[in-house]
Amino acid sequence: MAVSTIGFIGLGAMGLPMARNLVRAGHAVRGFDLRPAGRDAFAGLGGNPTVTVADAFAGADLAVLMVVNIAQAEAVLFASGGLAALAPGGIVALMATCPPGAVADLAGRVTALGHGFVDAPVSGGVVGAEAGSLTIMAAGADASFDAAEPALRAMGSKLVRIGAAPGQGATAKAINQLLCGAHLAVAAEGLALAERLGVDTQVMLDILGGSAASSWMLRDRGPRMTQAEPVVTSAVDIFVKDLGIVLEAGREAKVSLPMAALAHQLFLAVSGQGHGARDDSQVIRAYRSLQGRD
Amino acid sequence: MAVSTIGFIGLGAMGLPMARNLVRAGHAVRGFDLRPAGRDAFAGLGGNPTVTVADAFAGADLAVLMVVNIAQAEAVLFASGGLAALAPGGIVALMATCPPGAVADLAGRVTALGHGFVDAPVSGGVVGAEAGSLTIMAAGADASFDAAEPALRAMGSKLVRIGAAPGQGATAKAINQLLCGAHLAVAAEGLALAERLGVDTQVMLDILGGSAASSWMLRDRGPRMTQAEPVVTSAVDIFVKDLGIVLEAGREAKVSLPMAALAHQLFLAVSGQGHGARDDSQVIRAYRSLQGRD
Repeated sequence: MAVSTIGFIGLGAMGLPMARNLVRAGHAVRGFDLRPAGRDAFAGLGGNPTVTVADAFAGADLAVLMVVNIAQAEAVLFASGGLAALAPGGIVALMATCPPGAVADLAGRVTALGHGFVDAPVSGGVVGAEAGSLTIMAAGADASFDAAEPALRAMGSKLVRIGAAPGQGATAKAINQLLCGAHLAVAAEGLALAERLGVDTQVMLDILGGSAASSWMLRDRGPRMTQAEPVVTSAVDIFVKDLGIVLEAGREAKVSLPMAALAHQLFLAVSGQGHGARDDSQVIRAYRSLQGRD
Repeated sequence: MAVSTIGFIGLGAMGLPMARNLVRAGHAVRGFDLRPAGRDAFAGLGGNPTVTVADAFAGADLAVLMVVNIAQAEAVLFASGGLAALAPGGIVALMATCPPGAVADLAGRVTALGHGFVDAPVSGGVVGAEAGSLTIMAAGADASFDAAEPALRAMGSKLVRIGAAPGQGATAKAINQLLCGAHLAVAAEGLALAERLGVDTQVMLDILGGSAASSWMLRDRGPRMTQAEPVVTSAVDIFVKDLGIVLEAGREAKVSLPMAALAHQLFLAVSGQGHGARDDSQVIRAYRSLQGRD
């Protein structure tokens, strides 16, 4: 079954290009965002914006949520009347990064009302959202997954079915963010040591990027760690949030995650110094602080 | 000046192919190892083994040390009479992984006796040693570096001059190992969480290896983390040693390295369980232990 009518909530840096890619793939997409600017931008890209959640979902086969967190997802579906407006048997695809347990709970409430639910968080960032090259980590019952699949494939180039139980996609995303966040902290720890010992950080980046010490984060963010005011592709506070979700996933399952917990503390320290909106490469500021430098 | 006569100490898994590559490049190489098997293997590769350190160094222009640690390097040069046998003005190239401060101290003792010293640790492992594709992080005075350069280039494909002061190469290697060891622990933490939550680890490796969560260690060692008895390419105890050197480098400079310190504890725990000789991917056993699993 090809999905024909989609209600899309959250037209931000990620959601806007994702919704646009659905339009381009031929789906009828009604989009909502709390910010008028998001709605206007969607209209400019050929989309059909609405001024309420219920209008976006009215009679839709698929509801896509690219919201900030699980609380927003819950508000969209229940307090705002989104779920009640959806077509009977319509499917909810939650694509935001949320804690696995909370996703499973929300999915239970949605499916109890006769709707399908696909837990489908993404990785790939704004670049992947723009290019339609996101990796989508999906979990949901067969019928729901099959129905959502054409729309998911319009937004991502790699669609991985993690399992049948909502929450498993969120778990995969949490594990992904565990590695991303910890790798940022590790790269910062190494480069801050080089700074302190007077080893040229550009020389170190050249060595590390071509050795067994390499990581995607080192190669991408390492050069920006050495800049005082780097451009922001993703903020420190995103990792304060995402590593928080990682630790919540661990807490729910009673799994100890010491490296993630430590990395979280470092991002938190930098955010607490007033740098939460800076580029996430600036986690290196925590190390400079530990060394007594500004 | 092209080096013509080289004394090479340490014909193990790394040293043996490095010494062979020197022979192949046309250098006259006399090689010594405490183990007769190492000397026999060197002879079989066309090298010239000796039964004492002094014989290997007699009149040599360059002494290459690929020993286990700084204590062995010191013993070779002083207690075993190696330095006294070297040609006047002959150069010592220390290529083992050692603490930066100890390397600087040893270099001072060597140069005080009129010899040159190049601090030149490597990365690339046995594969890089075999292929002559090691990355060499070299630090030493111009004249010493220039004299050693042809020999170094015969063993590595990437020769990076870190600086003029011995100890700076060791610092670069320590930073390299900081990232390698911490990345192993982070990959293990993520995969152990996947195991516990019933997410397929092969699916996770596929996702993580193609996303911003990727690291060289994840891609290389991740698959072996899921095996009960993986082949050993580098042992847990190597990282017990190398992360110990990282922390010693931090302690010498009074630099806090919290991620490295935590990673070290995890390797140490696995070694303490009697698994120090296993593949370093088995750091994941620390996480399974934390979860109360075998």
